[in-house]
Amino acid sequence: MKPPVLSFDLGGTKILAALVLNSRVEFRDYSLTHAEEGPQAVIEYIFKAIDRVLKESGLDITQLHSISIASAGAINTKNGIVTLSPNLPGWQNIPLAEKIQKKYPVSVFLLNDANAAAIAEHRYGAGRGTRHMIYITVSTGIGGGIIINNKIYEGASGGAGEIGHMSLDAKGPKCNCGNTGCMETLASGTALAKEAKRRIKGGEESLLSGMVKGKIEKITGKEIGEAAEKGDVVAIASINRIAGYLGVGLVSLVNIFNPEMIVIGGSVAKLGERLLSPARQIVRERAYPLHASAVKIVPAQLGDDAGIIGAAVYAMQQKPFKPPTAL
Amino acid sequence: MKPPVLSFDLGGTKILAALVLNSRVEFRDYSLTHAEEGPQAVIEYIFKAIDRVLKESGLDITQLHSISIASAGAINTKNGIVTLSPNLPGWQNIPLAEKIQKKYPVSVFLLNDANAAAIAEHRYGAGRGTRHMIYITVSTGIGGGIIINNKIYEGASGGAGEIGHMSLDAKGPKCNCGNTGCMETLASGTALAKEAKRRIKGGEESLLSGMVKGKIEKITGKEIGEAAEKGDVVAIASINRIAGYLGVGLVSLVNIFNPEMIVIGGSVAKLGERLLSPARQIVRERAYPLHASAVKIVPAQLGDDAGIIGAAVYAMQQKPFKPPTAL
Repeated sequence: MKPPVLSFDLGGTKILAALVLNSRVEFRDYSLTHAEEGPQAVIEYIFKAIDRVLKESGLDITQLHSISIASAGAINTKNGIVTLSPNLPGWQNIPLAEKIQKKYPVSVFLLNDANAAAIAEHRYGAGRGTRHMIYITVSTGIGGGIIINNKIYEGASGGAGEIGHMSLDAKGPKCNCGNTGCMETLASGTALAKEAKRRIKGGEESLLSGMVKGKIEKITGKEIGEAAEKGDVVAIASINRIAGYLGVGLVSLVNIFNPEMIVIGGSVAKLGERLLSPARQIVRERAYPLHASAVKIVPAQLGDDAGIIGAAVYAMQQKPFKPPTAL
Repeated sequence: MKPPVLSFDLGGTKILAALVLNSRVEFRDYSLTHAEEGPQAVIEYIFKAIDRVLKESGLDITQLHSISIASAGAINTKNGIVTLSPNLPGWQNIPLAEKIQKKYPVSVFLLNDANAAAIAEHRYGAGRGTRHMIYITVSTGIGGGIIINNKIYEGASGGAGEIGHMSLDAKGPKCNCGNTGCMETLASGTALAKEAKRRIKGGEESLLSGMVKGKIEKITGKEIGEAAEKGDVVAIASINRIAGYLGVGLVSLVNIFNPEMIVIGGSVAKLGERLLSPARQIVRERAYPLHASAVKIVPAQLGDDAGIIGAAVYAMQQKPFKPPTAL
């Protein structure tokens, strides 16, 4: 049997580790990131997860192909550095691959989490058989990954695919990233909840108020989806608003990339056709006909495993990694 | 000597034809498109240009490598069809390559004009030595071409690179393409002239009024550039406005593509640093630092020959073309 990859999905809230071989995932290990404790503490939690997975599986570190980490943020894949990660406070130019490789005698790879999910959806999920595909994850924020000629497109320094930070409104709201009117500020789960709260605070009646027992701040995409199913006007209008911005973002991507497929994942994508149908309609109405007729816009298929599966596929495609200053 | 390509640059106003071998251009032939006469008439003008270049050069059609046409519009490169071209009235699904090939026994290639210019700038111009490069032409409209791994990225049907039809303002002005707030409506030469006219009609004093002898409608980017050189406030403010939108568009492209270089060509790019400097500043301020530090934003170098040179390079890279229904 080929050696598996020990894959990580490192998010702002939780860490998922597992052994991955092709699309098979075993020995899943969930833990909390405790991002507020800072980079060094989080790295220690990663070490502990490595040790647990090895112990559970009975494997020795030398029996791994590699460790591969899908991380939120702007990742320099060339040298394994997290340059910036808005949901991981204090992570600026952290040489994560090197730090792991100093402790464990194994190749370590690092890539953006949405890029990893794009790779997985292309290889084993909704994008199978396409040559040019875009993956978008709509969740608390919005991330993306670009498949060109069947490979992840990384750009000059591994940062390509920051689709959530395409501006849809040059004079729009400020984004955490420093830009204005980013798709992330207008079409994410955060934007969805914000719109519903704004409407309720403005006096509109909604089932949502009762669902969170009046604690408006607790409204999330999940409640909005449930309320929309019951015909709640505030919920439906809020979804339509972010679907509209998502659609405008998709038009731009369709005109620029002329892709065969756009795959939409992430927690907000669980809204399903309520989100995708109006977005598709906007693409049909506004994108170039040549481009609109070429593209399918579909939901992702791999769910929460996409990041770890993609990280493993990515690692299998790379040359063994040696960070510049490794021991 | 290798056989040359008979290259065309087919625009809404004029047709440039020439023999091209690598970056050498000979027997340039300029004629008017007479786009208002419709596709069949324009195709006849193309035939006449072919005949003139062959006669002038003393070459026989069989001595050509191919005919290659850089055309404005959304081009299906797979089957040589102009699917839509806003500046060529009536051009909808015109099988241009096939029509030429029915008359001349030679391979015929067709691609978008900005894609051709991107290829040329990458091979022989400002983008030499880069691996991932974006070309933008800012002129009456805005077009683009994307170089990935040293090759033009064409997408599923040859339409990739419609950068001018990325929306910078989801609720912005309607674009000819059917979308709203496209970069083309906010940062093109047309947008520049419109802004200057708006200011003058609103009562602002400007040298521009005198330069066009009060005929405000005659103001173009050329006069605005000249007035800006003389310190004219309306001209400078108008340039700053489109530079601002150009900058916002560049931020999105930098975040999405993480390119090594963005090359800016087209007639409006002749404004030079007045346009590029504020746009670059916005990229430095708003794009991800990982991405902003990787990209150079520079003027194009090949001028009006970029389209025909790129069309020739493209033809040399293709397999001989047979449209599906050719004789």
